[in-house]
This record gives sequence, C-alpha cells and structure tokens, in this order.
Amino acid sequence: MKRIFCMVFCLMAAIASAQVKEDFVPASNAQQGKQYPQVNSERRVRVKVSAPDAKYVQLDIGGVKYDLKKDADGSWIGESDPQDEGFHYYQLNIDGASVPDPSSLYYYGASRWGSGIDVPAADEDFYAVKNVPQGEIREIYYWSELSQSMRHTFVYVPAEYDKNPTKRYPVLYLQHGGGENEYGWPQQGKTAQIMDNLIAAGKAVPFIIVMENGSVAMPRPAGGMMGGFDFAGAFGNVLVNETIPMIDARFRTIPDSAHRAMAGLSMGGMQTKSVCLAHPDVFSNIGIFSGGTITVADADNTPGFRATNKLVFVSFGSRELENRVAGFGDGTDPIQETQELKASGANAHYYISPGTAHEWLSWRRALYNFAQLLFK
Amino acid sequence: MKRIFCMVFCLMAAIASAQVKEDFVPASNAQQGKQYPQVNSERRVRVKVSAPDAKYVQLDIGGVKYDLKKDADGSWIGESDPQDEGFHYYQLNIDGASVPDPSSLYYYGASRWGSGIDVPAADEDFYAVKNVPQGEIREIYYWSELSQSMRHTFVYVPAEYDKNPTKRYPVLYLQHGGGENEYGWPQQGKTAQIMDNLIAAGKAVPFIIVMENGSVAMPRPAGGMMGGFDFAGAFGNVLVNETIPMIDARFRTIPDSAHRAMAGLSMGGMQTKSVCLAHPDVFSNIGIFSGGTITVADADNTPGFRATNKLVFVSFGSRELENRVAGFGDGTDPIQETQELKASGANAHYYISPGTAHEWLSWRRALYNFAQLLFK
Repeated sequence: MKRIFCMVFCLMAAIASAQVKEDFVPASNAQQGKQYPQVNSERRVRVKVSAPDAKYVQLDIGGVKYDLKKDADGSWIGESDPQDEGFHYYQLNIDGASVPDPSSLYYYGASRWGSGIDVPAADEDFYAVKNVPQGEIREIYYWSELSQSMRHTFVYVPAEYDKNPTKRYPVLYLQHGGGENEYGWPQQGKTAQIMDNLIAAGKAVPFIIVMENGSVAMPRPAGGMMGGFDFAGAFGNVLVNETIPMIDARFRTIPDSAHRAMAGLSMGGMQTKSVCLAHPDVFSNIGIFSGGTITVADADNTPGFRATNKLVFVSFGSRELENRVAGFGDGTDPIQETQELKASGANAHYYISPGTAHEWLSWRRALYNFAQLLFK
Repeated sequence: MKRIFCMVFCLMAAIASAQVKEDFVPASNAQQGKQYPQVNSERRVRVKVSAPDAKYVQLDIGGVKYDLKKDADGSWIGESDPQDEGFHYYQLNIDGASVPDPSSLYYYGASRWGSGIDVPAADEDFYAVKNVPQGEIREIYYWSELSQSMRHTFVYVPAEYDKNPTKRYPVLYLQHGGGENEYGWPQQGKTAQIMDNLIAAGKAVPFIIVMENGSVAMPRPAGGMMGGFDFAGAFGNVLVNETIPMIDARFRTIPDSAHRAMAGLSMGGMQTKSVCLAHPDVFSNIGIFSGGTITVADADNTPGFRATNKLVFVSFGSRELENRVAGFGDGTDPIQETQELKASGANAHYYISPGTAHEWLSWRRALYNFAQLLFK
C-alpha cells in the first residue's frame, strides 16, 4: 500500500515537474546583475529569495499565491502558472509580510512601490529601446496655486524638438490609473519608446506628451490638506487652469483645442471623459483606455462637442471586455456604443488588445494605436 | 531575589523607553499615503511592517540590526539609535530575508534598489524643492558604438535654458559611487534642487550637468559581454569619445575644456581623477568628493595639467576624514595634500562636511560648495 502510494505520488510529482519547461531567463525587470525574477517560454514567472529562517514564502501574482520551496542553502524558489503577455505587478509573501522582491525593479501601482515583471509579448518590438532618434522624458516641478504645492510632472518631447527651435507641437495629456501616479506612463507604460519607434517609422506625427499625477491634494479652507482623489473636479481644475498654461508657456506647443488631446487608462480614462466633456473648447481629441466610452447621448448633451471634437478613441483588453459585456458594471457594451457614436457622425475608433486584461500591455498597445490617429 | 531582579529589569526597561522621544513624524521617503518610515528629533529611525507569522524582524541601518517588537495585530515596530543627519540606505530583515521596507521609497545603492531614509539636516533647506525657477532633469538614451548598447543618462538643464535659445552653457559630468548608478545624483543627490536653489540665489552660474552610469559593459572580441566595472579605462573611453560629443551635439554647450568639469563621489571621484589626468585637454575643472585628491606630484607629472587646470575641489565628510587620516588607506592626509597643491600654484579648494560619513549628505554639500566655485 505504502509502495503504491509512493508510486502514484512520485508519478504525479514527475508529471507536475515535467509540466514546467526549464528555459527560464532573467526578466527585463531583474535588477542590474541579478538573475531573478525569470520567465520561461510558457510565460511562467520564477522567483528566488534567500530567507533561511522563514516558515513559508509565496509568490503573489495575478491574484494567486504560489508556494515556493526551500533549497538546502536557505533560498526559496518557485514559479507561477503561465501569465498573460505583458506587465504584471507582483510581490512576495514572507511569513505573512507582503514585501517587494529584492531582485526586481520597482514600479508604482496598486497604491505602492513594488515589484513588476514583463512577460515577453509577441509584439514587444514596438516598445523596445531601439537605436532610433530618441526623444526625452523631462522631469519638472511647478507651483500650483490651487493646491498650494509644487507639482511633479513628466513631459515627453520628440527627438526633433530641440533641432527645430521654432517649430510648435501638439500636446497629449496622458493619465495613469487608480493606485498609480505620474511614473506609470514613463515607466511601465514605455511612452518614450513607443513614441520614438512610431515617429521613426513615420507612423505618428511628433507631439509632446504630459504625464501628470491625477490625484490633487487640495488645501482645506481651515488649513491642512484635503485627501487627494476625485474623479475630475480638483484635478480637472488644476489641469485646465494651471498645467496647460504652464506647459504652453514652457514648451513650444500649438495652444489650441484642435492640437490638444487628453487620454487616460481606467480611472484616468474616466477623468479624461469627465474633463473633456466639461471642456470641449479645451480638448478636441479624446482617448479612453479601459475606462468607458463617449456615448451618443454624451456627445449630444455636451454643447460644443459635435463642433469641436476631432477624435474619440476607445480601447479595452479583450479579457476585460469579455467580462464587461458579460455583465461588468452596468452591462452596456462600450464597443457597440463607440460604433453608434461613429454612426452618429463622430470620428470614433476602437481597439481591442488581444489576450490581455486590465493591465499595462493593453495600455501600451492602446497608446500605440491612438498615437497613429492623433493630430493627422 | 526574583522581585529585586524584576525591579532592576523594569527600571532599566523604563529608562530605555524614556530615552526614545515620542515625536516621530513620517520621513520624506515614506511612500505616498504611508505613515512609515518615521524619524524623531533625536534622529532615530522607526519602521513598522506587518509580518504576522514571522519569528523575528529587524531594522538594518548603519551596519547595525535592531530587533523590532511584535504588536498584537501582527505588526512589527521598532527604532534605531540616533543616526547622522542626511540620507541612509537601510533594509528590513524578516526571518533572514533582506528585503526593502514596503513603506519606503527606493534608491539604487549598495548594488541594489532598496530602502532609503532622509534624517532631516539643520541645513536641509539647500536641497528642498522650493518655488524658485525650476530646471529639468532630462532622461535620454543614446547609442554607444564602443559598448554596442543603448546607454541611459540623466541631464540637468537650468531653468533659463529654454528661455535663451541661443545661449550656450558650461557642462559638469557628475559621477555616482561604487554600487550606485546614474539615478544616484538625480535622486538621493538632489542635484536639480541644489542647483535650482543656488542659481535662484545668484550663488552659482547656470550650467548643464550630465549624470552617467560609471560602469560600462564592453563587448568581448568573441561576442558576449564583458563584466562592467573598471576605474576609468572603458568608462573614460566612452565618456570622452562618445558621451561628450553626443552632449555637445544635442545641447547648447560651450564645447571647450575651460567650460567642462568632471566630478564624482567615492569610486566616481577616483574615476574623475583618472580621466582628468589622462585628458587635461578635455577637463579643466575637477571635483573629487570622498575619493582622494590631486597631489603636487599628480599635477607636475601630467603634461599640460598646470597650463589648463582652472579648479581642483576636494571634499570629505568629517567622520570619514578622521578615519582616513588616522590610518585609512595609505595614511596620507588628502586635505594637507590639497593645501600643498594650492601652495604650488593651483586653484585648489577643500571642504569638510561637518558630522557626516561616507554618505549622501556629504556629497549634496560637496556639490553645493563645488557649484559655487565652478565656471566663474
């Protein structure tokens, strides 16, 4: 009996082991000189961490916690099930402590700086650092009278910007999602790489991209600060009345609505919708990534919208769209609504990212597709 | 006996407890919305982390591991002895795992991305983000033929740079230390804040600062890559033959040695010395922070040095200098050597940062003092 049990058990263990393909390589998000985290051709993520006195260590990725095994030297190692292509936040769980993987690079998302990993994608070339003319990400601070604070912002300028000292450029205001901040688009979003590659290939016209922090802490009337998040009120106020004038003064922009766009992902998409419908005279170009759409009713009920709007672009990851249409939220179909908007006369487009969920590869691809339509 | 022991023990515990002043506030390096890490007026660092199943958790800072205590809710909390003013790398030890504090911001040093904390300094105003005209940190990539790779670099430009489209500027090439990278000066170094504040106060002339990665991975003749670090050979070669021409082509520089400086901290100071002595026709201005000095013999044995050099600046933290003069390294006194260099006719200066060791407050203060002497 004991022997039969062992045979069955050993066979099962062998099958489980055989299922993991041993072609792991260090991920692009491994720190300089570190060998982990790794990914294999099945898109499994493997991590390794030294924790000699720990009772248990887990890899926490995609909403699942995977138990790691302890090596003789006190290191814990193990891998996840296959993940979707693209970027995923993850963390380690060491005896109940949720901590960053000490071997990975760190990103701001899920309301914390923590680990992230890129599972190679079939189309990853579009966001690779390549030897093409390189734009710049410029880190700037500016004083906000409304929020009584110095605000921190990233601005992408195309490679040709400093070579054409009199040329003026359109501007896209591009927002992160909930639990993220202004580092999202420059870092996990790969904004500069996507734009440099598109512009080098002649697929997008050169434009400036402003990446703001979508939360604004407002001073309370009685002093002290009021908690940060609102969908568009305080942020829209700062954006329209402070950020845009600052950008138009500091950069060589074309300061009119036809040459100004706003886009965002998830919460940033909802902010985009809210701000753009409140200010159709300010933004003529709209991108909403995984954050809803502009309906025919939105367009018709917004005075000036039909006259000024030049572009509406809507995108989703295929996996989140399946969930959404199947009953997520109010059960409406944002793709159908976008088609209806187009049929009503708007220049409306949609894009569905194949095989991705509510994650950054959906949004890298959204930017890649949106940018090719913008300002043309 | 038992009672006496308890009385003594309790008294000792009370004294120990009374010694910690309960005026902790969140550090500037706490993540957005997080309450820890904290510092108090005694310059103690307090951390808190949830690790309900851990056997032990320690705060590892300044070479000492401090045991944390477990709360009823599974959180571990505790504080260090008083630290020096300024910036310190630190980490947590959870059951033997060295991991970043999940509540702190992260910095690259000690050959890893990990936690850092700023203990407020009496003079911290000089590196604060203030509402003065703001320069920019520009993130750029460029192709290096020598290393067959895209290199990643940060460039500070002063606030007035884009407002004076024909004016040209001097350039400082500013290097990090061993185990650090190109993020060191923009992040823990507070380069932009120091320069913006100095320029706004009229204490420094506006100039450009280039912050490179001092390690260069060179392609092997037979393919593959050769390990990165050397003191100045490969890096100096890339810097002089690729970085400087790229910067002079891309930015409005004054492309001569009189208007070009190199400086660095620790390993970066040693690289500075090596590169500048090898290329006195390229760099006329030298800053060595915690990394040695230029001796009279160095100056006399370098053809061209006496004719071209305009400035030598040497600095140390007072604590490391005490150790050094007391026998560190070869037991020479770099301050005395700098004074001798000055007496021999060079424009040599030195600065000693009070109460700091081989850490970033020494180097922030070094940049602050060096910048006021440069290009005048």
